Amino acid sequence: MSGSSGSNDAGVPTAANPVPSTRLTGRLSTTTPAEAAATVPETATLLVSGFGGVGYPKLVPEAIAAGDQRELTVVSGGGVGDEIDRDLVESGDMARRYPFVPNETVRDAVNAGAVAFHDRHISRLADEVRFGGLRAGMNGPTVAIVEAVAVGSDWLIPSTSVGHTPAYVETADHLIVEVNHAQPLELGRVHDVYLRQAPPHREPIPLDDPLDTIGGPAIRFDPATLRAVVETDRPDDPYEFREAGKTERAIADHLCRFLEAELARNPLLAERVNLQFGVGSLGNALMGGLSAVDFGDREVSYVGEVVQDGLLDMLDGGQLSGASATSLALSADGQARLFDDVERYAADVILRPADISNAPALIDRFGVVGINSAVEVDLYGNVNATHIRGTRVVNGIGGGGDFARNCRLGIVTLPSTAVEGDVSRIVPLTPHVDHTEHDASVVVTEHGVADLRGRSPRERAEALTAVADPAFREDLERYRQRAASGDGNTPHDLESAFDWTR
Amino acid sequence: MSGSSGSNDAGVPTAANPVPSTRLTGRLSTTTPAEAAATVPETATLLVSGFGGVGYPKLVPEAIAAGDQRELTVVSGGGVGDEIDRDLVESGDMARRYPFVPNETVRDAVNAGAVAFHDRHISRLADEVRFGGLRAGMNGPTVAIVEAVAVGSDWLIPSTSVGHTPAYVETADHLIVEVNHAQPLELGRVHDVYLRQAPPHREPIPLDDPLDTIGGPAIRFDPATLRAVVETDRPDDPYEFREAGKTERAIADHLCRFLEAELARNPLLAERVNLQFGVGSLGNALMGGLSAVDFGDREVSYVGEVVQDGLLDMLDGGQLSGASATSLALSADGQARLFDDVERYAADVILRPADISNAPALIDRFGVVGINSAVEVDLYGNVNATHIRGTRVVNGIGGGGDFARNCRLGIVTLPSTAVEGDVSRIVPLTPHVDHTEHDASVVVTEHGVADLRGRSPRERAEALTAVADPAFREDLERYRQRAASGDGNTPHDLESAFDWTR
Repeated sequence: MSGSSGSNDAGVPTAANPVPSTRLTGRLSTTTPAEAAATVPETATLLVSGFGGVGYPKLVPEAIAAGDQRELTVVSGGGVGDEIDRDLVESGDMARRYPFVPNETVRDAVNAGAVAFHDRHISRLADEVRFGGLRAGMNGPTVAIVEAVAVGSDWLIPSTSVGHTPAYVETADHLIVEVNHAQPLELGRVHDVYLRQAPPHREPIPLDDPLDTIGGPAIRFDPATLRAVVETDRPDDPYEFREAGKTERAIADHLCRFLEAELARNPLLAERVNLQFGVGSLGNALMGGLSAVDFGDREVSYVGEVVQDGLLDMLDGGQLSGASATSLALSADGQARLFDDVERYAADVILRPADISNAPALIDRFGVVGINSAVEVDLYGNVNATHIRGTRVVNGIGGGGDFARNCRLGIVTLPSTAVEGDVSRIVPLTPHVDHTEHDASVVVTEHGVADLRGRSPRERAEALTAVADPAFREDLERYRQRAASGDGNTPHDLESAFDWTR
Repeated sequence: MSGSSGSNDAGVPTAANPVPSTRLTGRLSTTTPAEAAATVPETATLLVSGFGGVGYPKLVPEAIAAGDQRELTVVSGGGVGDEIDRDLVESGDMARRYPFVPNETVRDAVNAGAVAFHDRHISRLADEVRFGGLRAGMNGPTVAIVEAVAVGSDWLIPSTSVGHTPAYVETADHLIVEVNHAQPLELGRVHDVYLRQAPPHREPIPLDDPLDTIGGPAIRFDPATLRAVVETDRPDDPYEFREAGKTERAIADHLCRFLEAELARNPLLAERVNLQFGVGSLGNALMGGLSAVDFGDREVSYVGEVVQDGLLDMLDGGQLSGASATSLALSADGQARLFDDVERYAADVILRPADISNAPALIDRFGVVGINSAVEVDLYGNVNATHIRGTRVVNGIGGGGDFARNCRLGIVTLPSTAVEGDVSRIVPLTPHVDHTEHDASVVVTEHGVADLRGRSPRERAEALTAVADPAFREDLERYRQRAASGDGNTPHDLESAFDWTR
């Protein structure tokens, strides 16, 4: 937008003109995926686009997996597809992975110790990549591989997710762009790309309302870093949501009643409600259930990470004024619905970099009501969101911690049991803690709501026992009594604390 | 500062004129402590000033303890004195306590289950009090009891700490002020009082540099809330720091070498270093040890919670350009030193409300290097900072979590053993987690530095075993091998994980 001569900004898509006329602008030549893959050094850190299982590069990772043996650190924004998290694992090229592993193949490799994984908060990753915070993990040159809907000589427009792509493109020694003809060129309309300054002289994020915009559709890059441009028309391999069952519907019902009570008493929700839901089938079902909440004349916005199908329903139904996220984590049906009418949805949907969508400062300022799921919750309100039996990682923490820590009202929703009722998800002591008792607020199961706000650990244990599955309540009660026979602010009987778990 | 007629701002101390000419301005009448105490209802929530063991009200809590039986929730900024956390416990008046219990009497009562305690992050408490977030804990009318160096008809100047006092005064149904003649009237020079707007339309904190100011010395109040003004000349009962021993000096030495290496490689520390240290003898010793670090021509500031004695040394020695905190948590000697020359120290020392000193947004923007201690660390980098054997609370989390989560470089310093070497502080699995593995960065013991950044859980376990006490390394190694014979991203043997603890 600068008017100075010598500026290279002519033709760069802007918020006012977000849709370029062609996929490739200027004198760019394209290569085959194999040629692009051949530019990747034997030891390298791949910084790949993608978040919520969409917007990831497809052909180049596949070609890397098919090519020479390499030793790669792979860093994504969030969830990506099989071409990365299956193929690069099976080929033996992936030595290390950050920050999220929703794909079965990479998860099994991580749990077997074959791939070194660090499960890091989404909000922190862009900075850690930009400023060298992942010391042990950044090996060799950094190669950004980015899916785009369009590319020019020094800019690209990301596709179905923004994620950490702006930070990765800035950091990259080498850049490879996959231009995907299967993603609408009009997606530039939904993007609001903004790259923060570096600490210690970092500016406040200049966003006054979660539905304002502060950037534009394009990520700029140094042309000297560009190694290859590849074209593809392979679509994302998006989410499949489970149909909500009886338990999910009961949780949604308790959540809605709780939210209605909270709307009546919480001064911070008097005019405006900024909601976040975690990604996944339960989150999607809860979002759908929210249509039943009477928000009165309040403005309701989604302020989170991912746009899921349930959210499109709320937009279409007029219950939501808009959505701010970093990824269109839709089902195939949801994608078709949005792609058919990008221009209309773009009026209400904004995709931002993940360090903006998940910024602690904004979650605080916008007073977000955060609703996230968990593997289990212990009697004192410690939440395990990532590790089965404390050992096997499932997916990773993602942005759950960003919202649990910084939102104004944090709600954990989970079925009271797992494994068809054989395992209680309310446990005496969880062997892996993702959200601590210091953040404990509200827990909802199909049996009701445990409002832990302001309660002591012993009081929380009582409230959480009451929302456990009835088949486990007596055992939990016995544990509480056994624990309380010793002393302590959070009494435990460490001899028997893991009797259910081990 | 408003020039409009009808404004009531005439005579209110400002940043330009921070020192009033008298302790009591205007037509204020004073009462005895017993008369003030008699205004406190039988069931009430006391919001008391005080942080870091200083700046707390003394005579009125003592008089409440001596008076009729009450049922009180007591909420402070941070640590306060015996008149609150001993006397009100022994008198049976304290039913509930937030958010920090460094005093032995209240801690014992909490651990016995006699006082209900919720251990809450410092950064969150002001908002939770202001906006009803502590639901179960706020009982009866709210009564703010605040120590001041001066008071007028609708303003007061806090004494040796700011803490959450601005939020508490705003929230209070009733206000009682203790004017303390033992605290210098000139303390107005160090205060920068600023109260944030409410979400969801909350402004960014308008602070561009940690040593800038954005407010003034005075907290404003609604004159209709004022119930009593009491005068006193009882001094704070401040910290006593232990002399640093051999272990603390070895930790300080490793820390200094690590910081020097980090200065050479970390781009975020190229010009400016904003340091935070936890409160306590180890923190104080480390602060003293920092004099040995060669910071080159970088500007070095303290950006934390408490001004401790070691920090005055660094200010006097010219190693620090200034300090931003919320409390003057000094020893008696340190207080005397500062009180003798408030005007000089006020040029370099700023006390802010604790929700500003600990604001996640500012810790992030200023790229703080946070250095905090712990009870124990487990093999995967989970940190227990609050609960001995997972049950008995010590002090509480305070602001440790605020800094651990949001700082740019988080360092945990701790001796490798406790109980004269009988207990390892590097353990297989900690039964209480305050800072999770997702925030694990750097751990320093007297045996060296474990740099966990970017490492997988298995790699972290190896690095942490290497800084454990040599007497425990073989056992930790055996645990790691036993755990790794199962699978999982964070392998454990839950049968034996607590063999050391229970």
